[in-house]
Amino acid sequence: MVQAKVRLFVDHPLSQGQTVPLDKDQSNYLFAVMRLKEGAFVALFNGRDGEYQAEITVANKRGGELVCHAQSKPLLMPPDLWLMFAPIKKARTDFIVEKAAEMGAAKILPINTDYTNSDRIRQDRLQAHALEAAEQCGGTYVPEVTELQKLDRLLADWDQTRQIMFCDEALVGAAEVLGAVKGDKWAILIGPEGGFSAAERQKLHDLPFAHPVSLGPRILRADTAAVAAMTVWQQHLGDWS
Amino acid sequence: MVQAKVRLFVDHPLSQGQTVPLDKDQSNYLFAVMRLKEGAFVALFNGRDGEYQAEITVANKRGGELVCHAQSKPLLMPPDLWLMFAPIKKARTDFIVEKAAEMGAAKILPINTDYTNSDRIRQDRLQAHALEAAEQCGGTYVPEVTELQKLDRLLADWDQTRQIMFCDEALVGAAEVLGAVKGDKWAILIGPEGGFSAAERQKLHDLPFAHPVSLGPRILRADTAAVAAMTVWQQHLGDWS
Repeated sequence: MVQAKVRLFVDHPLSQGQTVPLDKDQSNYLFAVMRLKEGAFVALFNGRDGEYQAEITVANKRGGELVCHAQSKPLLMPPDLWLMFAPIKKARTDFIVEKAAEMGAAKILPINTDYTNSDRIRQDRLQAHALEAAEQCGGTYVPEVTELQKLDRLLADWDQTRQIMFCDEALVGAAEVLGAVKGDKWAILIGPEGGFSAAERQKLHDLPFAHPVSLGPRILRADTAAVAAMTVWQQHLGDWS
Repeated sequence: MVQAKVRLFVDHPLSQGQTVPLDKDQSNYLFAVMRLKEGAFVALFNGRDGEYQAEITVANKRGGELVCHAQSKPLLMPPDLWLMFAPIKKARTDFIVEKAAEMGAAKILPINTDYTNSDRIRQDRLQAHALEAAEQCGGTYVPEVTELQKLDRLLADWDQTRQIMFCDEALVGAAEVLGAVKGDKWAILIGPEGGFSAAERQKLHDLPFAHPVSLGPRILRADTAAVAAMTVWQQHLGDWS
């Protein structure tokens, strides 16, 4: 069986022999954009059942159908890592969501901080970005993107068994902190461009489950810091080792 | 003395008491965009002499002058790490150059590979991106962006004491490789979206100074891989520890 080059997320149960209907957008993508014909294979995943090689059995402009053959990848759940970040300019926010999905975040939480520049996000658009990134990176899991939440409210209801690594002007390297702190549930918190406010910083430093870390001697933009922090985490506690 | 909020690269010697003239673009930025007046302070760096706090003594629309007060940062040279990458779509190429400067690459080398999508780059525009990133990230050094070079020609003239870490479908984690290989001169090589060709892969695997590494179980886009690979390198051999 040929390994399909196109990967598609479908919100439909997947198993060997299962028929999967396509909606108009998916049909347009597969048959008009990618010019696939009946008999061609597509890799399908739904975030729950792993990845299946599926054969196109009906290819119409307004709809189509595939039949699942063998499973090509089991469901690979990411480690229990959340990424919390303060939305910035549109392109960089999109980028952070895309990178979080690629880097294997389990959940993506846009947060409002005292110095956050934007008050609203398009949750549906960001969720679509996460899905597209999962299609591209070969993942079988799509992280949920939550609605915008206030940082102080999120921290007030916090599950205290989930450690927080936050990037601050700290003196301790991220690797050292991750080596010293126990816990398998984590969240990375990336502040806004203007940094955290004095009140937020004080609050974070007072929380026993929150750990300030350094990411080197240069100041990183929020999007760079997100990828760098996830890299250090995945290497030390995640599925990179 | 107030710490200046605006940082500016100038191609001029810097030392205490030194007068620094501004060109039209720089004057426009400081006096029209940032609305700074005579007496205000700006942080200047030139990539060679560290950073100086400089006072605006002349502020005209078409020109200006500053006088350097004390040095506020010594020159911080980055470790001897090059980033080689195959240019992709414009926005992502810009992004890679920006991120390389932020992450502390000493030199940025766009390369042509068998599967590279673009044949030309605007070296001057990419160099300007690196400079802007240095201004933003508080660095005192600006990495050089070279002209587009062919990978095979670059490898033919390679200084064999410079190790290459290349991201491939390898089984060995980047951290393990960096822990095992000696050498303080390195280059990270990020392949194009389509990966390396079979011939290139064979060639790289045959070179004693080139080391294939893995960056986790998901496929990373070139721009993500660049940041992730530089993170691992900086942590193990660079100036993050």
